[in-house]
Amino acid sequence: MFEHALLGDLLGDKVVSTAFSGEAFLAHFCRFEIALTDALGSHGLIDSENAVAIISGCRSFTPDIQKIRAETVIDGLAVPAFVRQLKAHIGDRYHADVHFGTTSQDLLDTALALSLKGINENFALDISVLNESLQSLIHAYGQNRLMGRTRMQAALPVKACDRIMAWQAPLERHLTRLERIGSAICVLQLGGAVGTNHVFGEKAAAIAGDMATSLDLGIPAKHWQTERDNLVDYANWLSMVTGTLGKMGQDFCLMAQQGIDDVVLKGGGSSSAMPHKQNPIAAETLVTLARFNAVQVSAMHQALVHEQERSGSAWALEWMVLPKMCEATACALKTAHRLAGQVSGMGQQH
Amino acid sequence: MFEHALLGDLLGDKVVSTAFSGEAFLAHFCRFEIALTDALGSHGLIDSENAVAIISGCRSFTPDIQKIRAETVIDGLAVPAFVRQLKAHIGDRYHADVHFGTTSQDLLDTALALSLKGINENFALDISVLNESLQSLIHAYGQNRLMGRTRMQAALPVKACDRIMAWQAPLERHLTRLERIGSAICVLQLGGAVGTNHVFGEKAAAIAGDMATSLDLGIPAKHWQTERDNLVDYANWLSMVTGTLGKMGQDFCLMAQQGIDDVVLKGGGSSSAMPHKQNPIAAETLVTLARFNAVQVSAMHQALVHEQERSGSAWALEWMVLPKMCEATACALKTAHRLAGQVSGMGQQH
Amino acid sequence: MFEHALLGDLLGDKVVSTAFSGEAFLAHFCRFEIALTDALGSHGLIDSENAVAIISGCRSFTPDIQKIRAETVIDGLAVPAFVRQLKAHIGDRYHADVHFGTTSQDLLDTALALSLKGINENFALDISVLNESLQSLIHAYGQNRLMGRTRMQAALPVKACDRIMAWQAPLERHLTRLERIGSAICVLQLGGAVGTNHVFGEKAAAIAGDMATSLDLGIPAKHWQTERDNLVDYANWLSMVTGTLGKMGQDFCLMAQQGIDDVVLKGGGSSSAMPHKQNPIAAETLVTLARFNAVQVSAMHQALVHEQERSGSAWALEWMVLPKMCEATACALKTAHRLAGQVSGMGQQH
Amino acid sequence: MFEHALLGDLLGDKVVSTAFSGEAFLAHFCRFEIALTDALGSHGLIDSENAVAIISGCRSFTPDIQKIRAETVIDGLAVPAFVRQLKAHIGDRYHADVHFGTTSQDLLDTALALSLKGINENFALDISVLNESLQSLIHAYGQNRLMGRTRMQAALPVKACDRIMAWQAPLERHLTRLERIGSAICVLQLGGAVGTNHVFGEKAAAIAGDMATSLDLGIPAKHWQTERDNLVDYANWLSMVTGTLGKMGQDFCLMAQQGIDDVVLKGGGSSSAMPHKQNPIAAETLVTLARFNAVQVSAMHQALVHEQERSGSAWALEWMVLPKMCEATACALKTAHRLAGQVSGMGQQH
Repeated sequence: MFEHALLGDLLGDKVVSTAFSGEAFLAHFCRFEIALTDALGSHGLIDSENAVAIISGCRSFTPDIQKIRAETVIDGLAVPAFVRQLKAHIGDRYHADVHFGTTSQDLLDTALALSLKGINENFALDISVLNESLQSLIHAYGQNRLMGRTRMQAALPVKACDRIMAWQAPLERHLTRLERIGSAICVLQLGGAVGTNHVFGEKAAAIAGDMATSLDLGIPAKHWQTERDNLVDYANWLSMVTGTLGKMGQDFCLMAQQGIDDVVLKGGGSSSAMPHKQNPIAAETLVTLARFNAVQVSAMHQALVHEQERSGSAWALEWMVLPKMCEATACALKTAHRLAGQVSGMGQQH
Repeated sequence: MFEHALLGDLLGDKVVSTAFSGEAFLAHFCRFEIALTDALGSHGLIDSENAVAIISGCRSFTPDIQKIRAETVIDGLAVPAFVRQLKAHIGDRYHADVHFGTTSQDLLDTALALSLKGINENFALDISVLNESLQSLIHAYGQNRLMGRTRMQAALPVKACDRIMAWQAPLERHLTRLERIGSAICVLQLGGAVGTNHVFGEKAAAIAGDMATSLDLGIPAKHWQTERDNLVDYANWLSMVTGTLGKMGQDFCLMAQQGIDDVVLKGGGSSSAMPHKQNPIAAETLVTLARFNAVQVSAMHQALVHEQERSGSAWALEWMVLPKMCEATACALKTAHRLAGQVSGMGQQH
Repeated sequence: MFEHALLGDLLGDKVVSTAFSGEAFLAHFCRFEIALTDALGSHGLIDSENAVAIISGCRSFTPDIQKIRAETVIDGLAVPAFVRQLKAHIGDRYHADVHFGTTSQDLLDTALALSLKGINENFALDISVLNESLQSLIHAYGQNRLMGRTRMQAALPVKACDRIMAWQAPLERHLTRLERIGSAICVLQLGGAVGTNHVFGEKAAAIAGDMATSLDLGIPAKHWQTERDNLVDYANWLSMVTGTLGKMGQDFCLMAQQGIDDVVLKGGGSSSAMPHKQNPIAAETLVTLARFNAVQVSAMHQALVHEQERSGSAWALEWMVLPKMCEATACALKTAHRLAGQVSGMGQQH
Repeated sequence: MFEHALLGDLLGDKVVSTAFSGEAFLAHFCRFEIALTDALGSHGLIDSENAVAIISGCRSFTPDIQKIRAETVIDGLAVPAFVRQLKAHIGDRYHADVHFGTTSQDLLDTALALSLKGINENFALDISVLNESLQSLIHAYGQNRLMGRTRMQAALPVKACDRIMAWQAPLERHLTRLERIGSAICVLQLGGAVGTNHVFGEKAAAIAGDMATSLDLGIPAKHWQTERDNLVDYANWLSMVTGTLGKMGQDFCLMAQQGIDDVVLKGGGSSSAMPHKQNPIAAETLVTLARFNAVQVSAMHQALVHEQERSGSAWALEWMVLPKMCEATACALKTAHRLAGQVSGMGQQH
């Protein structure tokens, strides 16, 4: 739906959907194979001339994405078809040295880490930008009076800044959390067929270190093929961000009601039936995205029940949910920023 | 993710995603406007010559979808931009008579009903086809012996048909349910700005009747702009179908284990690391899709809290969830059918 | 929480929690064993004198509930300990004929059906009573004017009855649905160890028929040990009811805002800090209960992935969720009725 | 269900349910009032002799819990009735100085923090104990051979310790996380009627500091009446713990299958129908509890949409969910420990 021809900009985010596109993932797969081959060559697990040839082959490789898509139905993920095509491209002679010692999950999870790295940099930026627009609202209207409302009933007056700071303070915590969680998830995956890196033997750690360095990723203490807690922590973070923005959106919807009139918004949505209306679309959208992510996060937790050395079913559940959660979060940050910019009045001056 | 370049065929469904595409919805909007105009003309609410001109204009109209997409961000849905373009296309003279008396939600919900109608016909067909493949399994292997397992422990022997029938019997109930629920949701939406059809006055029922007939939809007892229970009932149905297939998939995964060997599957997925493996991808995918829909259904229930005469936030939540649920269901039915076809042995002969 | 010393009446329901109590279930177990024994005796599967003795033993049996609770930790459910105590009470001589041919799930699911039967009768009554209070509101205030609000913005005026009918119409559909779904779930469970009723042979259907008659339950076409779709359909119904009432509650919260003043409520909650406030507790509670059930329903759908002939893990998930969903629904119906009774004004007279 | 007469020990936890009991919360309320009064007296906001009398009154006060429960239905929470009774007990003369400047939420959230503090200490202990039992398994069986299984298919051999460490490593991360999250949530709540602590003026920070010290809680940078992100982070932690244990449980269920025989368990559950069976109840229960919490966490995220200065509906949703999540987590830790103790064999010796 997010990539939808009509709704893609309202409820989606182009940067995120591009980061999760088939093209982006195939490019990450190539980067992985290059880093792997380079490390294998350095540590003498494959012949160094073969390494040069393979790396060169990876660089000149253009996968046939339609064919990969079709074979993904059979294999359950794109890596086997990708590797088959890559090997064919590089040539039979190097067959045994391509993708040596590694497994589909190593590529796919590392590709995920690479995509999330860029996405997280955007998130950090978007949160900072939003923080500044909220700061501007505080500057412009913060000392104005609002009727404080508890249980949706008029209680006692507050200042506009009191309410705005309840949107802002969690964002600052989210930034701090992102730094920690981002480091935990933007790490290499390298475990091999059953997570033991048995093919690499004693050189496993050195290979992982080199690969992480060349991919600019962190090195996990241990592979995380079946330990998805950091990823769930990240999904939780995404939904905490949209939840915070959902509270802001809900507050705006309530403040914009005629009869309450605690905020004046310009540039609202038009109605096909009622030309006089100015709908607080951005505010409503924040509520929608919050409730969407609040539902999705449950799937990520269900996927923790990841049986044995690799669960195809739990793992694929992540694929169906996490990209959309990222997209909803990016869209919500962008939408909240737009909403803050629509404010042309808040509260009553003394 | 479902329309994903790599995963689109594994976890999505082309027929469903097409039925929910921007193009399909814009075409439904045109059909709605034609049916509306025709009815308005017949009942004398607009001039009959104007009606002819408007209908002709609807037929020759090609919306600028990129422009609509961009304006959807402002308006919160595509209808206002669509109507603006349509009116511009038909000409100023007819401005007041185009989209007369109706509102965005009437178009969008009716378009949904039209899309679901086609999708449901496919579901009915897919369930019947799947039922037949299960019947073939019963025919081929039904009398073979399986060890019945309760709490994942060997209990007492059963026949293969005992287990297959536990997949099949709910499908038959789902077919019966679909007939009832499909009739309840494939209905016209016509309420006008605040659900009172105040513009149509006493002719509202007659107009709705005519429109429903020409769109081949049912007529609801009352508009359903804020009463989303039938839609939730439908979402529940979708997730019941995938849940039934998820049980089947889980059973296959367990039966296919080496050491259990209760089923022989051909055409399983290959591994990039272990050429000897045959992964039961289709069976795992059924579990994934079941757990996905089991999560999504929660969002549809959250959207029942649909405030006042129209909730933008609750309504948009449906858009983010329901199409994907349909797609997951279609994919699951197709996948289950493929899985049944992969069986080349089940249970032990006596 | 629902049985909580402080919150039990606010968020729970005594009738439902009693129907799901340990005592109620143990009584249902006894009724099951009596019906079973009676049928076994009639059909000659056990000696008729033994049947008389066993039935008499069931009637005089008082289970040691503390002991059963402790052994439930080991056995995973209460039935094995119950049966051990029952057999000891009746005496060694009848050991082989007590609980003959049946399994824990037969007792527990049948007990569930018995409890739900009483609960559903209450639901039907509560919905009718609520419908009447809404009808009274229509009678008293229905022609008054409300500002219709879409996307939380003033749109066009409606009558109070327009809004009230959007709460009422789904309730009528829920009543119709309850009749169908109630019949589908208030049925005997009888499948035996692995669902084949192998011990009863050709007499299985006759035994089931007799038992169902004496327990005043329906006879399913087939045992439902692993086919939980009807139960999920019921859970969906529960959450549709609370969702409908959540919409009503949300509307009341919005109408009760100072500045909107579309409803006057008497008997609202007091604040520990602000004596002037009248909080619309009942309305808020309806929103809470709706969102609670909207989350829980997801667990029931997850439990559809019920592997093989009996899944301990999926089944126990139902136990953790369904009783609370029933309780939330009963509480919501009661709360909505109280809320309707608190109305002392709605809308503006012309 | 957790406090259920039959299922309370299987699916619940006595320590947690006691920590959330009405009695525990009323005791916390008294502690809050004592700490408040003491601080108010010290800082001269109330007369110091009055403070002594009020504190003494708090100490001798026995609330009428039945009356509070009944009035909670009207007020929406227990605090107003508690305060009325407390004031009546202490006497009219001190009426204005009791509960001075504070609000229901301050008491209830602080009581929550106090309860969670004790619960978290238990969690830390339980995780350590479980870690040790897993360490014992590694010691006893770690070098034994297991067939590594990916996508539920035999892949390549691993050592038993490889699989056990995939259960253990996340637990260590959970311990680290608990320290951080525990500190963030075990903090005083003090905001007053609308979160501004307006009654305390410049002395608000000093009063909060003194109260936090005497209650042995942390001081938040800002009140958290509407900023529930730390609480959601905690709920996420709870579900990550049960998810980790759910993976362990699922692995055990699969390992215990006849035909796989990768683990030998003693002390499994008995069947009422099949005396030969040993059901892996503890393992199944871990899966159930994981899926339960994975659903509940969604409600906590929904509750982030906490409108204005206090949302009765979002807040009460937390009450319905968080205690049960804690209980499920405590039960899972206890159950996992029991399961580890049931192992009398794992993998094959070389």
